[in-house]
Amino acid sequence: MLDDLFSPASIAIIGASRDENKIGNVILRNLVSSGFPGRIYPVNPSYPEIMDLKCYPSVKDIGDPTTIAVIVLPARVVPQTVEDCISAGVKFLIIISGGFAETGPEGKKLSDRILSLIRNSGTRLIGPNTVGLYLPYSNINTTLTSYSRVSFPPPGNIGFISQSGALGLLTMDAISEYGIGISAFINLGNRLDVDETEFLDFFESDSRTGSVAIYMESVADGRAFYERIRRFNSRKPLVILKAGRTAQSAVAASLHTGAMASNDSIFDGMLSQAGSVRAYDETELVDYARVLAYSKLMTGNRIAVLTTAGGVGVISTDYISDSRGIKPLQMARLSENTKDQIRKVIVPYGSAENPIDLTADGSVSDYDRVLEILMRDDDVDAILVYALPQTPKMNMGVVDVVEKHMKAGKPIVVGVLGYKIAKQLLVEFERRKIPAYPSVNRSVKSLGALYGYSAFRRVRQ
Amino acid sequence: MLDDLFSPASIAIIGASRDENKIGNVILRNLVSSGFPGRIYPVNPSYPEIMDLKCYPSVKDIGDPTTIAVIVLPARVVPQTVEDCISAGVKFLIIISGGFAETGPEGKKLSDRILSLIRNSGTRLIGPNTVGLYLPYSNINTTLTSYSRVSFPPPGNIGFISQSGALGLLTMDAISEYGIGISAFINLGNRLDVDETEFLDFFESDSRTGSVAIYMESVADGRAFYERIRRFNSRKPLVILKAGRTAQSAVAASLHTGAMASNDSIFDGMLSQAGSVRAYDETELVDYARVLAYSKLMTGNRIAVLTTAGGVGVISTDYISDSRGIKPLQMARLSENTKDQIRKVIVPYGSAENPIDLTADGSVSDYDRVLEILMRDDDVDAILVYALPQTPKMNMGVVDVVEKHMKAGKPIVVGVLGYKIAKQLLVEFERRKIPAYPSVNRSVKSLGALYGYSAFRRVRQ
Repeated sequence: MLDDLFSPASIAIIGASRDENKIGNVILRNLVSSGFPGRIYPVNPSYPEIMDLKCYPSVKDIGDPTTIAVIVLPARVVPQTVEDCISAGVKFLIIISGGFAETGPEGKKLSDRILSLIRNSGTRLIGPNTVGLYLPYSNINTTLTSYSRVSFPPPGNIGFISQSGALGLLTMDAISEYGIGISAFINLGNRLDVDETEFLDFFESDSRTGSVAIYMESVADGRAFYERIRRFNSRKPLVILKAGRTAQSAVAASLHTGAMASNDSIFDGMLSQAGSVRAYDETELVDYARVLAYSKLMTGNRIAVLTTAGGVGVISTDYISDSRGIKPLQMARLSENTKDQIRKVIVPYGSAENPIDLTADGSVSDYDRVLEILMRDDDVDAILVYALPQTPKMNMGVVDVVEKHMKAGKPIVVGVLGYKIAKQLLVEFERRKIPAYPSVNRSVKSLGALYGYSAFRRVRQ
Repeated sequence: MLDDLFSPASIAIIGASRDENKIGNVILRNLVSSGFPGRIYPVNPSYPEIMDLKCYPSVKDIGDPTTIAVIVLPARVVPQTVEDCISAGVKFLIIISGGFAETGPEGKKLSDRILSLIRNSGTRLIGPNTVGLYLPYSNINTTLTSYSRVSFPPPGNIGFISQSGALGLLTMDAISEYGIGISAFINLGNRLDVDETEFLDFFESDSRTGSVAIYMESVADGRAFYERIRRFNSRKPLVILKAGRTAQSAVAASLHTGAMASNDSIFDGMLSQAGSVRAYDETELVDYARVLAYSKLMTGNRIAVLTTAGGVGVISTDYISDSRGIKPLQMARLSENTKDQIRKVIVPYGSAENPIDLTADGSVSDYDRVLEILMRDDDVDAILVYALPQTPKMNMGVVDVVEKHMKAGKPIVVGVLGYKIAKQLLVEFERRKIPAYPSVNRSVKSLGALYGYSAFRRVRQ
């Protein structure tokens, strides 16, 4: 049903502007810059053309039933424009404008009017009060923030749905630093018509989407949502950041999106029953979505840690052994045979006990040999590998080694601390779809997320 | 007593090498690169000179009592070299070499021999088994990792002591990304002679050090350590990352540094009694040290949140209101007067309730006016300000505004999410010594650390 939204033949920008300070200018520029290959129709009665594109006085004058119309007009004139779009045969409306139900009774009336128009038509609506969509595989960017202010991520495997537009834009900007890709970014806005469940339908069948990350402050229909995400989780992992957890933040959330949040402990139980991993902030949301999109499932919770820095191994053991990870993990007990084999690889002052410490003498080929050994030990369910670039024998070759073992065997999560060479390593791991994180804590928690989802899938199947 | 270590007239590198793959080469190169203005004496009988510096066959041939001798030789010849250094009048030895007590009984004998030599002399020893020191105010870098592999931070206000060398180097590398500065980095190694308490004495009286961060796996003398850090905390804040918290990680720690860790809950109570904030990983360690070095104390735990993105305000409220922050904080209840004044600044669809949401319309001058209002509200103890660069009216001017209010009034912590412009903002905030963090969670937890330490100081004084 939403398929045409993801591969439209044409997009109209109603309220396109020549004024660079106007949102109607930014959106048109973003769409042109993103390289959309279809037809683009600026609509604005004031101009004959904008950015060398022919400009139309009204959507009715285009004379081509456009797939998508993006509306950037004052709220009060939007209902009439919606009517025009419907009669022009537009399939999808994206209403960027705010000033509807979120602002009070007057705005609510405008919302109701739009809803009744849409209900009696074949046209579907995203928004209003959305910052737009970013669909990198379709070269579509209808968001209201300019490329000079935020970076947009490359095409990737995470479907990203956000109730908050700003949080979505900021998160996309942040993950771009590491080249982390997404399959689509959807800001739902006021969810007058299309809501998250329909996008879940799309993502479930979209082969490029490996996992979905949702930021939400409220659920429209709890029961329906539960059923939908439980079904989704039995096929693909869904990570949910539900904010407004406490009484006070629930009030803040209702002021923000105009919807009342439900009791958080009920929601928490629902997520867990439905197999969704819960994130508590914007960093965890993407961290977990990555490990879930890139990894096989874990068959148990026993982790082997491989490092060249003893201290990093000790802190990892702390997080794995205590309850600070989100799901109970445990340090694997290596068999005597495994330890004997590891001892043949490492220097005498290294440690063959878990956490395995190769010391600063650890080379990329040592990593290769030790990973080989660990992959054969049935008491190890997953491996946390640190690629720490401060030691002289560490180099980019470690990425090939980890990739080879991850493809052939058990799940691997990589920790890369530092900056100078660490950044290049993180970007390269990401390019190969190997989950890598810049801190001990984030690495261990991501393993916990993978284990939590794996446990749900094991019971379900 | 350690003063000469921080401003030496001369440094000898015993075991300096021309071979670029040798640590004796890296350390000499690091010392030269760091711009040390004193005399540098390479010592190695094989060469007449290295890197255009005259090379001496033995430390006894230098004919100038050097302040510091860095020893990079095989463990078995180190005792003789120590004897030579003592007779040559060297004040401080930094023994980089490993192969001592951490490797077993043979190494222990070498350690004991060195200790007895030192004990009967006026020479002091750091190490053995240390990666070296980095003292940016003195232009001294004796660490064993090359500038091509890790970045070293600029001069700053955090004293950094680490029992793990690699963790120290990786952390310095990581914080360099944001221009976070340190006053000194000390890797204690096996602590045969000088330990953390003497460095605490130095940092306590060092005016450039605003806070100290320690990574440790074990304490030599628990009682003495408690007394020392309690006294220290009554003057300056000390953040401690004590790893080896769980039974399993304690074993890993003992394999790593050869010292047995004590019961963690006892340690935890001790830290809290002594007024130290506890960090649980390498990120928290520096995050907390920064807020403590840069901020005034908080007089209470009531936080006002100022944002241009509603979702960010809601997640912040979650973290502030529940127990996930390290110390119980609470959302400030703004007075009616405060809210009335804020309403005059913000757009109608913004929120004057805490979290205060200026929406995407928030400008830098709005921030200025709202901060002015919040500074006057007696029910607000500290302010969490989000500088979010995705909105068109946000710019670098926000740094000036925050700096002005932070200097004049209550503590401020800044959250900056994203990458493209966010990175520049984070670096600029850091340059002005304003604590700024790239995530909601890290911003709130740092406020919790500041409150925890403030509460200790309030009781103590």
